[in-house]
Amino acid sequence: MTRTPTRDDRFSFGLWTVGWTGTDPFGVPTRPALEPWEYIGKLAELGVWGVTFHDDDVIPFGADEATRERICRRVKEATDAAGLVIEMVTTNTFSHPVFKDGGLTSNDRGVRRFGLRKILRAVDLAAEMGATTFVMWGGREGSEYDGSKDVYAAFERYKEGLDTVASYIKERKYDLRIALEPKPNEPRGDIFLPTAGHALALIAELEHGDIVGLNPETGHEQMANLNYTHTLGQALWAGKLFHIDLNGQRGLKYDQDLAFGHGDLISAFFTVDLLENGFPGYPEVPGYTGPRHFDYKPSRTEHMDGVWESARACMSTYLMLADKAAAFRADPRVTEAIRYAGVLSLAEPTLNEGESIADLLATEDGFDPDIAAERDFGFVRLQQLALEHLIG
Amino acid sequence: MTRTPTRDDRFSFGLWTVGWTGTDPFGVPTRPALEPWEYIGKLAELGVWGVTFHDDDVIPFGADEATRERICRRVKEATDAAGLVIEMVTTNTFSHPVFKDGGLTSNDRGVRRFGLRKILRAVDLAAEMGATTFVMWGGREGSEYDGSKDVYAAFERYKEGLDTVASYIKERKYDLRIALEPKPNEPRGDIFLPTAGHALALIAELEHGDIVGLNPETGHEQMANLNYTHTLGQALWAGKLFHIDLNGQRGLKYDQDLAFGHGDLISAFFTVDLLENGFPGYPEVPGYTGPRHFDYKPSRTEHMDGVWESARACMSTYLMLADKAAAFRADPRVTEAIRYAGVLSLAEPTLNEGESIADLLATEDGFDPDIAAERDFGFVRLQQLALEHLIG
Amino acid sequence: MTRTPTRDDRFSFGLWTVGWTGTDPFGVPTRPALEPWEYIGKLAELGVWGVTFHDDDVIPFGADEATRERICRRVKEATDAAGLVIEMVTTNTFSHPVFKDGGLTSNDRGVRRFGLRKILRAVDLAAEMGATTFVMWGGREGSEYDGSKDVYAAFERYKEGLDTVASYIKERKYDLRIALEPKPNEPRGDIFLPTAGHALALIAELEHGDIVGLNPETGHEQMANLNYTHTLGQALWAGKLFHIDLNGQRGLKYDQDLAFGHGDLISAFFTVDLLENGFPGYPEVPGYTGPRHFDYKPSRTEHMDGVWESARACMSTYLMLADKAAAFRADPRVTEAIRYAGVLSLAEPTLNEGESIADLLATEDGFDPDIAAERDFGFVRLQQLALEHLIG
Amino acid sequence: MTRTPTRDDRFSFGLWTVGWTGTDPFGVPTRPALEPWEYIGKLAELGVWGVTFHDDDVIPFGADEATRERICRRVKEATDAAGLVIEMVTTNTFSHPVFKDGGLTSNDRGVRRFGLRKILRAVDLAAEMGATTFVMWGGREGSEYDGSKDVYAAFERYKEGLDTVASYIKERKYDLRIALEPKPNEPRGDIFLPTAGHALALIAELEHGDIVGLNPETGHEQMANLNYTHTLGQALWAGKLFHIDLNGQRGLKYDQDLAFGHGDLISAFFTVDLLENGFPGYPEVPGYTGPRHFDYKPSRTEHMDGVWESARACMSTYLMLADKAAAFRADPRVTEAIRYAGVLSLAEPTLNEGESIADLLATEDGFDPDIAAERDFGFVRLQQLALEHLIG
Repeated sequence: MTRTPTRDDRFSFGLWTVGWTGTDPFGVPTRPALEPWEYIGKLAELGVWGVTFHDDDVIPFGADEATRERICRRVKEATDAAGLVIEMVTTNTFSHPVFKDGGLTSNDRGVRRFGLRKILRAVDLAAEMGATTFVMWGGREGSEYDGSKDVYAAFERYKEGLDTVASYIKERKYDLRIALEPKPNEPRGDIFLPTAGHALALIAELEHGDIVGLNPETGHEQMANLNYTHTLGQALWAGKLFHIDLNGQRGLKYDQDLAFGHGDLISAFFTVDLLENGFPGYPEVPGYTGPRHFDYKPSRTEHMDGVWESARACMSTYLMLADKAAAFRADPRVTEAIRYAGVLSLAEPTLNEGESIADLLATEDGFDPDIAAERDFGFVRLQQLALEHLIG
Repeated sequence: MTRTPTRDDRFSFGLWTVGWTGTDPFGVPTRPALEPWEYIGKLAELGVWGVTFHDDDVIPFGADEATRERICRRVKEATDAAGLVIEMVTTNTFSHPVFKDGGLTSNDRGVRRFGLRKILRAVDLAAEMGATTFVMWGGREGSEYDGSKDVYAAFERYKEGLDTVASYIKERKYDLRIALEPKPNEPRGDIFLPTAGHALALIAELEHGDIVGLNPETGHEQMANLNYTHTLGQALWAGKLFHIDLNGQRGLKYDQDLAFGHGDLISAFFTVDLLENGFPGYPEVPGYTGPRHFDYKPSRTEHMDGVWESARACMSTYLMLADKAAAFRADPRVTEAIRYAGVLSLAEPTLNEGESIADLLATEDGFDPDIAAERDFGFVRLQQLALEHLIG
Repeated sequence: MTRTPTRDDRFSFGLWTVGWTGTDPFGVPTRPALEPWEYIGKLAELGVWGVTFHDDDVIPFGADEATRERICRRVKEATDAAGLVIEMVTTNTFSHPVFKDGGLTSNDRGVRRFGLRKILRAVDLAAEMGATTFVMWGGREGSEYDGSKDVYAAFERYKEGLDTVASYIKERKYDLRIALEPKPNEPRGDIFLPTAGHALALIAELEHGDIVGLNPETGHEQMANLNYTHTLGQALWAGKLFHIDLNGQRGLKYDQDLAFGHGDLISAFFTVDLLENGFPGYPEVPGYTGPRHFDYKPSRTEHMDGVWESARACMSTYLMLADKAAAFRADPRVTEAIRYAGVLSLAEPTLNEGESIADLLATEDGFDPDIAAERDFGFVRLQQLALEHLIG
Repeated sequence: MTRTPTRDDRFSFGLWTVGWTGTDPFGVPTRPALEPWEYIGKLAELGVWGVTFHDDDVIPFGADEATRERICRRVKEATDAAGLVIEMVTTNTFSHPVFKDGGLTSNDRGVRRFGLRKILRAVDLAAEMGATTFVMWGGREGSEYDGSKDVYAAFERYKEGLDTVASYIKERKYDLRIALEPKPNEPRGDIFLPTAGHALALIAELEHGDIVGLNPETGHEQMANLNYTHTLGQALWAGKLFHIDLNGQRGLKYDQDLAFGHGDLISAFFTVDLLENGFPGYPEVPGYTGPRHFDYKPSRTEHMDGVWESARACMSTYLMLADKAAAFRADPRVTEAIRYAGVLSLAEPTLNEGESIADLLATEDGFDPDIAAERDFGFVRLQQLALEHLIG
C-alpha cells in the first residue's frame, strides 16, 4: 500500500534520532545505545539516503585527536559502505554543563571562546565528512530571567560568532552553508532565535550572511504557535531555506519530536505539497531542493523494533503525502476552486506595469467596496477538497 | 503614592482604546460611543501627551471629501486646544467586509488596489495631522487554510505594497516613518507577519526599508509564546524600534488588550527597565526614544468611569515601574549581582582585538570545561533582587 | 466519493452556526442574516436531521409574549415541515450587556435573578419545542481579575442556579437533561468551568446532578491544551456525555470554530472512532448515542455559497472518518497491533478476582522490572496503522 | 527587608527540588548529588519546617530490605535532629523504564501489579516516616497516541488502583490522606488527570474518595492554560485541597518549575491571598491549613550557592506576598472597591429564603436589563489597587 523509499527520495535522519535512548526529564533510558555504525547500517536497509550527526554523537566530548581520527574514519567507512551520504553535520553546544548558559552567548567569555573553537572544529569535521550543510541550533543561547542577559550584547556576540564561523568556511573554501535552527524555548526559558523570522532578521545583519540560511523544524515553529508552512514559504521567498527538520508536535507543550505526520496532519500535507510542488503562482521559483531530513524521537515506550518502525513511518507518511499532494494539484476540481478563490491572482502585481502612484490614486475604476465585499472566496470548499484528497 | 503623569512622560493612547465600546465575539456594546474630541479632551485631563487613531476612528468609511475635511479640522483643533500631539496615525484595512481576505494581500486584485489607495490617503491624513509615525497592522493579511494562499505571492504583494507606501512618503517628503505591527493570529487563523522577527525579515528585503521599522505590541508577541523584552531588544539592536504598543495579556488565548501591567508583571518590569534604562553593557546605544503608547481595551465590565480608571492605571503602572527600575539599577547589591552573573562581560567581544581565527584555534589558555562548568551564575539571586525591587 | 448524509446519521446544527454573519472583534458582518426558517429549510435539503438554537437566535431579547408565541409557532412549523427535529435548545446569557459579568454568577444579584428567570423560560421553550437536551454554556461566568470574584461564592451560586434549573425540569416533568458546556476562556479571561473535568467536578456536588451532564466542544477542550478524545472518554466513563459539539481548532488561540476535521485531523479520526465504535475493551458499554451536533462557524471570507459548503463539509468529513474508523477496527493487522500493544489487557482488573491486598503484596511472581522494561509496546506502529487507514 | 522564615510559616520542600542536579532533555547534570541528610540539614538552617520525598529519592530502586531499613532510619534521624517534619511522602512510578507506559494504567498487567505493590510499600514508608499526606502524581499514566489506550479501561484501572491504596490506608489505620497531582502533559503527550477538575471528577467516582483529595501545582495548571487561583478555589469549595505545590511557570511550554513568584506574579499574589486570607464572603470557611510546599527546580545555570539562594527566594517571596495580601485586605479603599464591585454580594443566595421557583418567575421587581447593564463594576480599579499593594 505504501511505497518503499529509495535513495532518490533523499530521506536523511539524524543519528541522534534513532539513537535516542529515551532519557527525559522524568526518566532514564529505556533502550540501549548502539554504536554509530549500527544505526547507519540499519538506516541504509530502510531505504534512507543520508545521515547527519552532532560532533558529540560520534566523538565523545573531549576525545583526543587519535580517538577522533579513528572514529571519524570508521563512521565515514560505514556510511560509504552503506551507500549513504553524510549530508549535514552539526555541533553540540548544549549538553555539557560548560554550556549551561550558552556557547556563543554565554556570559562567561572563556566559555564563548571554548564554544567557538568547538564549533570551528565541528566545521572541519563537517567538511571532512563531505557534508554540505552545517546546522547550528543555539539551544542554550537564551535565558530564564530578563535581568540575566543584555540582549543587545547577546545579538552582538551571536553575530560575531556566526560571522566568525562563516568567514572560516570561506577562508577554508569549504563547500558548506550554515543553517540556523530556531526554537522558542526548551531547554532555556526563552531562546534568542525563537522563530524562523527572528533568525532571518539576524542573518540580514551579518557580514557573511550570504552563506547563512535556515533549518526550520516543524515542531519548533509550532511551539511558537506558528504555521510551519508559512514559515517555509517566507524562508523560500527570502532564498534561505537551506535545510529542513521534519517531525510532529501536538500543540504547545514540551518538544515532542513525534514521527512526521503524527502531529498536525493537515499542516504536514501542505508542508509536503510546498516542498514537492512549490508555489502555484510561481512555477519558475525553484522551491526546496535539499534533503528530506527527519529530526524526531521514537517514543520512549518503544524498544528497538519500535525505533525502526518509527523511522519507516516518517518516510512512508512523507511518500503518501507527496502522492496525495500531486493528485490534489492535478485534480481539475481543485484547479477550478483555486481559480475561484483567486489564489493565482495574488501573483499579479497590484500596480499595473509602469503605473505611478499618482496614476493609482487617480484610478476611476468604479470599484464599489460594498459589492466587492460580497465575493465568496470558497476557501472552505478548497480546504475540503484538500481534505478529501488527504483522506479520500 | 503614585505619580501623576505629565506631558514630559510622553504617554499616548489610541482613540480606539478608550473608545472601545465592548463589542466582542459573544456580545454587543456595553458602553456608548463618544465623539473623537470627547476622548481627546478627557485624555488631556489625565495627563496624556499624545493621541493616535485609525483613519476610520475619526472619519467614517467612505465619507466624502467635505465631511473628511470638516472632521479632520475638528480633530486637529480639539487636540491643539487640549495641548496634545497626534503622534501616530494608522489605517484600518480590517473592519470593512471588503478586507475580509486582507488589504495588501487579498486574493482579489481590485481589493488590493482599493486597499492601497486607502492606505495612501491615510498617509496623507497622518502627514496633515502632524504625525511622525504611520503604523501598519495587517490584521487580515493571512489565512485560515494553507491552500488558500500562495505564500510567495503574499510576500511579493506585501513588499510591493510597503515599498509603494514608503516611496510615496519619500516622494511627498513627509516626515513619517512606517512601523509594522506583527501579530500571530486573530482575526485570521495565521497572520503573515506573526512576530517581530518575521516583520524584521520582511523589512530586510524592502527597497525602501530604511523608513520602515516596527511597532511591537506586548500581547501580540506573547500570543506567539515569545518574550516581549527580547523582542524589543532585538528590534533596538536592528535599529528598528520605531514605535511601541504597551498592554497586558495573560497567556495564550484571544487578544486581551488588558491594561499595561495587568498581564505578566515581571515582564512589564523588564520592558520598562529596557525602555527607560537601555542596555547595561551599552550606555552609548540610544535605546528607545519614542512615545510610550498604550494599545489596550478597558474591560467590557466597566462603564465610563472604568474607562478613565483603566487609562490612568496604564500610566500609573508605567511610572511606578520606571521608578522601581531606576532603583534596581542604582542598588549596589544589584551591581554586584550583575557582575557576579557576568552580564556586562557579554558586551566584550569573544575574539581579542585583531585576533585571527587561526590565533583563536591555537589558543592554549588552559581552559578546562569541567572546571568552568562549576561556575555559579547567580541568575536566580539576580532575579530575586529584581523581584524585591519590584514588590519591595 | 463522499456519502450524502441522511436523517439516520443524526447530524444536527445550531442555527447560530450557519447563521453567523461574520462579526468578529475586528470586523463587521460579511453576510446577511436570514430568518430562522430559511436556515432550517436549507439545512433540511443538505440531509441534516436536527437543529438547535439559543432562545435569542429565534426570539429577539425582550420580545413580548405575543411575538414570542408567534415566532415559536413559526419555527416549529418550519422544522416540522422540513422533517427536522429540534433536538436541543440553549439559552443566551452572554450577549446582552446586562450579562457582562455573567448570568448565574454575576456580582449583581438583580442580574442573577433576571438571568435565572431567562434560563427557566428557555427551559419552557426547550420543552415546548420538543428538545431533549438543554445546553448551558456559561461563557460570561468568570473573570479577568482574581480579586473581582469570590470563587467559593461563584461555585455556590453556580450550584444554586443549576439545581434550581434541574429541579424546575423535574417539577415540570419535562423530558429534558441539562448539558454543561465547558470553555477555558473567551469571552472572559478565565471562565469558571474551564474544562470538562471541572464541570464533572461541579456536577458531582449538585443535588440534582442526575439530570446534569456534559456537552464538550472539540475546540474548547483544545483551547485548554487538552486531548478531546480523552475528555469524551472520561465523560462517557462517568456516564455524563449527554451531548456533543463538534468543530475544528488549530492550537491555542481565539475560538476558531472551524469546520469539523479542519483542525487536528488525527484527533478528529479518533473522536469519530470513539463515538461510532466505543471502547475496544468494553463492547458492552453503550458509548455515545446522542446527536452528532456541529457547533462551528463558516469562515468570514465566505458568502452564502460558502456557508452551505462548510455545513456539507462537516458532515462529509464525519462520514468519511466513520468509514475509515470502521475499516481500521476491522483490519486484522490492527487487531494484531492492538494485541501487541496490550490495549485490551488494560480492561483486565489489576487484582485477581477476590485477591486481597495482602495477597497482592505477598505475590512471588518473579516479575523482573528490568526485563519487563524491555517490552516494545508498538504504539508508534499502531498509530501509523491508524494514519494509513486515515489517509490511505 | 524580607522576613526570615520560621517553623511557624510551615514551609516545606521536596528533597528532589534542591536535589535536582540539572539533567534535562538536552543536558547532563551541572551539580553534584548530595546525600538526603545533607539537603535536610541545609534546609533546616534556612528556616524550613518540613521536607518531603519520593521513595526513590532516598531509597535506591530495588534496594533490599536491610538497605531500606538503614536508610529510612538515617533519614528519620536526620530530620528529627534538624527539627524538621516529614510532612509528605510520595512515590516514583515514572523514572524506571518499567513504568514507561504508566504504573496504575500501563497496558502491561504485570507492570500494574508491580506498580501497585511499589505504591503500597511507599504508603508504609510514608506512615513510618510520620507523613500525613501521600501524594500521587501519575506522570506516566497517559499516552501519545489515542489508539494506544482504551480510556474507559484507563479510568477503571485508575479507580481500582486508587481505591486499593485508599482501602489499604484505612485497613492499616494510617493517619494518611492521598493527594492527587494533576498535570496536562510531560512526560506523556497527554496525561490522564490533566487538570484539578479531571482529578476531582475521578475522586467523585471512587469508593474511598473520602480520603482522596488534590495536590495542585501552580505550573501544572498553568500548562493547561488555566487560572491556578480558580483551581484552588474550586478545590477548597469541594473540600479537597489536601496539599499544594507552589512554583513558577512562564506560559505554555515545558514544565519550568521556577521559584515561586518567578512566573506569573499577579497570580502568585492572589494565590497567597487565598491561602492566607480565605474567601472574602465566607469568613467561616476554614480555607487551606496544610503546609506551604514548594515543588520547584533551582535553575540549571546555578551551582550549589544558587540552589540555596533559590530555596530562600521561594520562602521570601511567599512571606512578602502574604504581608502585601494582608495590607490589601486591610485597606479601606480596597474595602470600598470590593463593595463597589459587588464581590461580597455574590455570597448572597440568588433566591430569597424559602422562595419557590414559581415565586421567582412571578417576580415583578421592575428590573430593567438595559439600565442594569450600565453598571460600572470597577474591576479594573480593584485590580489596580491590588497591583499598587503588590508593587507599591
